[in-house]
Amino acid sequence: MNCEVVAVGTELLLGQIVDTNSSWIGEQLALAGIDSYFQTKVGDNWQRIRNALELALSRSDAVIVCGGLGPTQDDITRDVIAEVMGVGLEEDPEVVERLLRTFGSRGRSMPMNNLRQAMVPVGATRIPQQPGTAPGLVCPVGDKVVFAVPGVPYEMQEMVTGTVIPELRRRAGDTGVIRSRTLRTWGHSESGIAEMLGHRLEHLDQSGHATIAFLASGIEGLKVRVTAKAATAEEADAVLAAEVDEVASVLADYVFSTDDEPMEAVVLDLLRRRGLTLGTAESVTGGLIASRLTGVPGASDVLRGSVVAYASEVKFDVLGVPAGPVVTDAAAAAMAEGACRALGADVAVATTGVAGPDEQEGVAVGTVFFATTVDGVTETGMVRFPFDRERIRQFTVITVLDHLRRRLLAR
Amino acid sequence: MNCEVVAVGTELLLGQIVDTNSSWIGEQLALAGIDSYFQTKVGDNWQRIRNALELALSRSDAVIVCGGLGPTQDDITRDVIAEVMGVGLEEDPEVVERLLRTFGSRGRSMPMNNLRQAMVPVGATRIPQQPGTAPGLVCPVGDKVVFAVPGVPYEMQEMVTGTVIPELRRRAGDTGVIRSRTLRTWGHSESGIAEMLGHRLEHLDQSGHATIAFLASGIEGLKVRVTAKAATAEEADAVLAAEVDEVASVLADYVFSTDDEPMEAVVLDLLRRRGLTLGTAESVTGGLIASRLTGVPGASDVLRGSVVAYASEVKFDVLGVPAGPVVTDAAAAAMAEGACRALGADVAVATTGVAGPDEQEGVAVGTVFFATTVDGVTETGMVRFPFDRERIRQFTVITVLDHLRRRLLAR
Repeated sequence: MNCEVVAVGTELLLGQIVDTNSSWIGEQLALAGIDSYFQTKVGDNWQRIRNALELALSRSDAVIVCGGLGPTQDDITRDVIAEVMGVGLEEDPEVVERLLRTFGSRGRSMPMNNLRQAMVPVGATRIPQQPGTAPGLVCPVGDKVVFAVPGVPYEMQEMVTGTVIPELRRRAGDTGVIRSRTLRTWGHSESGIAEMLGHRLEHLDQSGHATIAFLASGIEGLKVRVTAKAATAEEADAVLAAEVDEVASVLADYVFSTDDEPMEAVVLDLLRRRGLTLGTAESVTGGLIASRLTGVPGASDVLRGSVVAYASEVKFDVLGVPAGPVVTDAAAAAMAEGACRALGADVAVATTGVAGPDEQEGVAVGTVFFATTVDGVTETGMVRFPFDRERIRQFTVITVLDHLRRRLLAR
Repeated sequence: MNCEVVAVGTELLLGQIVDTNSSWIGEQLALAGIDSYFQTKVGDNWQRIRNALELALSRSDAVIVCGGLGPTQDDITRDVIAEVMGVGLEEDPEVVERLLRTFGSRGRSMPMNNLRQAMVPVGATRIPQQPGTAPGLVCPVGDKVVFAVPGVPYEMQEMVTGTVIPELRRRAGDTGVIRSRTLRTWGHSESGIAEMLGHRLEHLDQSGHATIAFLASGIEGLKVRVTAKAATAEEADAVLAAEVDEVASVLADYVFSTDDEPMEAVVLDLLRRRGLTLGTAESVTGGLIASRLTGVPGASDVLRGSVVAYASEVKFDVLGVPAGPVVTDAAAAAMAEGACRALGADVAVATTGVAGPDEQEGVAVGTVFFATTVDGVTETGMVRFPFDRERIRQFTVITVLDHLRRRLLAR
């Protein structure tokens, strides 16, 4: 069974929107064990959509068409699919009723062109999930099938997860259950992680019950995805849980999450469970640590605040850093201790360094000093990043948070 | 003249990498007036790359193939193009020499597989720009042409701008010069901006010398791109300058940049030219304002620092906010004034509000109070955003920076 993706929309070709839908669908197909060899983008043009669909049907077992299901004259995906199926369109009274209800409940009258969305190729069935107004469609073409889903990401995702993937697996005669979980790691290279897991990978190749895939994800860490397949959900869950335990125990504290959580959420959780509050003192990261922490709902339980001390005088006056050079490990330590005092926090992290473009105090671009204070004890570290300004800042954030995580685990 | 894009890489199909290259190329083609009807993604598979190339050549005048030019066994784009051209590969001694030089200058010996990158289809020419190790190629196929460029974005971009687009325009017999500039606006809807520019748009339709396109860009503002085309560079520059002036004067202070700069860079510039320093006091934005400002190289000239006052006590103790409710306009004002004092800044911005998921002090999620202090005078504002947590935070950042921008302009 293989399935390809056709994304419809002139704005995709013009580069006004990046086609993240196809990437997301590609990942879901790969997870479900369905091969996918081509993805195509095509504009809102009848003949070219038709050509793209016919080509896709000639070389793949199934096609997911994404976009062009809206109410405007541009939205012709339904019509072209009907032509490819060799059938007409008929009005689906349930969709009409739902559209009228939706507009009615918002106290608005429905523009007539919305009725276009109720036109369904004869022989097609509606996808039951319908989070928006545009209905998704399952359209049989001979022994193949075209799935039409909207271009709005959350609507598309609900339909693909709820109907398209299960239907593709059913057609593939794949009656088993697939479960997967993503572990995140920090502090070791992809080849290093792969080497640590070498014996597991060999074992898995033989057993065929589970697979492990690596995905380098920059400042989000190296992701390790474990996928299990079994006859029943219980069995798949059991295989997955056992495999995740095994991988997590081999990779030990390189793993910061066994549930695909970002580092900042993990650190907040560790602090919350220990009843500790956090403050940050940031120079080179300029508020990035605080902004990532405060992006997590519920951060206010733990985070007291942050002093972004960009000017040296702010380091001296607000954080009590002793006068002198400020791109040193001593300055980082004084900043972390000053953050505990100024913000009334139990625990603090601090960063000072040179993100460029120019060196500072004779310290080279890419040099970063960081500090963590836990239980009144301050530790510092230094890293040199061969990166540009933005990546120096971003890598500093995850480096110092990981340092704090390890200290909290060891506490 | 039309040109399509083929992006090569199994990781693109698996959704491990989002194909932003094709979107970028699509935008450049559109800007240059070259039609593009299809974009295809294909994995690292000989037969399927060949099929994709042959199909593209059958329906388009030119093809840009992106990716698969690296040194590993997976990288077979060169080889497949040679097959499609019906020619062999020959070693390009200049590329060999450059590769040896590159590795030598890094004090490393060159792995032999790098020599694959020096193999060029007979009859193809190298693209002169070569920022990385992989050479780009211009490969004639009958009266059509295949351009091969690397998948590394900055390498690809340099080659497309420097060689591919000019060569496509030459082939199209398009001897004119195209120039474009992007204005950014904030504070008015796309339809509102379009209405303000209505008479210009009509005029331009008739004159044919320049075009205006809108691009809604979320927290980056609504972009207005003006494109001019003329026989000579001087003429195009003159048409563009006149049109940009006209558009900027019609849109007045909705325009925050006539040169595609982000809001934070514009605000830093306005402050720098006035010799003023800036501090921020952030609650609901949690360091986002500071982190965006410090993302701009040279921000340290202007930005003193920031107090992220997430806990109420930090607002009271560090910023001197009077005890009492903290999600009010009075609290925002006290925070801005406190930031000036605590950070020794001439000018300050402050935010306090409710990003959710829960309401706070009886104030609904999405409610944001902000303040700006300039020349000792503090002004406040309130906005209600019907957004999720992250968008509430992001829209607050640009709203308060725009407020400060307008005050600095009016000063």
